[in-house]
Amino acid sequence: MTESTSDQQLLYVNDQLSDEEIQREADLYGPLTDSVRGLIAATLQTEVGESDVRRARALIGEAASLLRAKAIPGPYGVRWGASGRKRGWGNAADGLRNAVAPPLNIRTDPDGRARTDFHLGPQYEGPAGLVHGGVSALILDQVLGDAAVAGGTPGMTGTLTLRYRRPTPLGDLYAEARVDRVEGVKTIVVGHISGSDGICVEAEGVFILPRWAREAIAEQNASTAG
Amino acid sequence: MTESTSDQQLLYVNDQLSDEEIQREADLYGPLTDSVRGLIAATLQTEVGESDVRRARALIGEAASLLRAKAIPGPYGVRWGASGRKRGWGNAADGLRNAVAPPLNIRTDPDGRARTDFHLGPQYEGPAGLVHGGVSALILDQVLGDAAVAGGTPGMTGTLTLRYRRPTPLGDLYAEARVDRVEGVKTIVVGHISGSDGICVEAEGVFILPRWAREAIAEQNASTAG
Repeated sequence: MTESTSDQQLLYVNDQLSDEEIQREADLYGPLTDSVRGLIAATLQTEVGESDVRRARALIGEAASLLRAKAIPGPYGVRWGASGRKRGWGNAADGLRNAVAPPLNIRTDPDGRARTDFHLGPQYEGPAGLVHGGVSALILDQVLGDAAVAGGTPGMTGTLTLRYRRPTPLGDLYAEARVDRVEGVKTIVVGHISGSDGICVEAEGVFILPRWAREAIAEQNASTAG
Repeated sequence: MTESTSDQQLLYVNDQLSDEEIQREADLYGPLTDSVRGLIAATLQTEVGESDVRRARALIGEAASLLRAKAIPGPYGVRWGASGRKRGWGNAADGLRNAVAPPLNIRTDPDGRARTDFHLGPQYEGPAGLVHGGVSALILDQVLGDAAVAGGTPGMTGTLTLRYRRPTPLGDLYAEARVDRVEGVKTIVVGHISGSDGICVEAEGVFILPRWAREAIAEQNASTAG
């Protein structure tokens, strides 16, 4: 870790918010993020000419200026409020406030399972008309990691192996994962993405909680309790 | 492949554009995409209140409507013009018109090498302050695939194996890949992402050109020549 102590404090924030205040934030910023997702697709698909593009850029710039008037200076990090529930709203795979992320509503079970129905629009393309192999990797990394968390043995990705069995079509898809076994500090998780024709991509991940992360969590828990 | 013939035609488009016209499109839509990238970060970082968010959403909605007035109906696919050079501008990892993609300027050598300097902002976060493991996978899948193309043996990802050696910090990064060997229809490519402290993520990919893709390419080449 190269962050200084003050950066670390910005990345792990106990903002004291109540569950009601957190819900209000979700209701405020969630639809904003969705509107940006729509704009990303429109930007990719548009065929309008120079004057309309110029006008759109001006509107986008005006919106960004409004939003930047009061903003955090860096990444979102991890925040938690009164109830202690963690929010990773900046997460690239499933962050509520991250327009790069497709809306993933990952459901988990305490026996170490995670699953999600999701939809991938034109901004997730790799080969023509198909999901980018790396986007499948992004979603599987997240779903497998969430299964490890759900099973009580969280970790950062140590290794991730992906087998692409058939092309993954853009559109409605499903992903699931389950903890296969735990070996010391390693949690081995397996999962897949499937479309209407069956399994498209299989994954196996090894999730490890490194020493510095275990120490940071212990410190956080101490400060949450304090 | 489940696409109908008409969908296929929308995904592989010979648009007859000259190199000058293509450059004009890049100059028009590239900066538009960059402005959306800035908006994605501002949306994630903003702390402004309800009235400003409402105003920003209205501006974003107006921009999206302007852009949708004339637009392609689905994914960008692959386009090529008079010179035959392919444009995958909708690509999720390096598409010029895809705001999900960080700007990656991948340079390649005909001996099967690819490399790129790039910058990852707050929208690529996974663990607090760090690059999402799946985003590293997305970038490596693209860079490894481009090395396979550069070496003259392109393919779709068959398997991808990632080893996360140390946390990848957000910010300025570098990725490179090279073809290790070719075995029949399989091209084996290795590569990595590194930051200022050294290699963060290593990858090995097996790229395969499936029969249907070989046939589609043959058909395209026939129609390009015709």
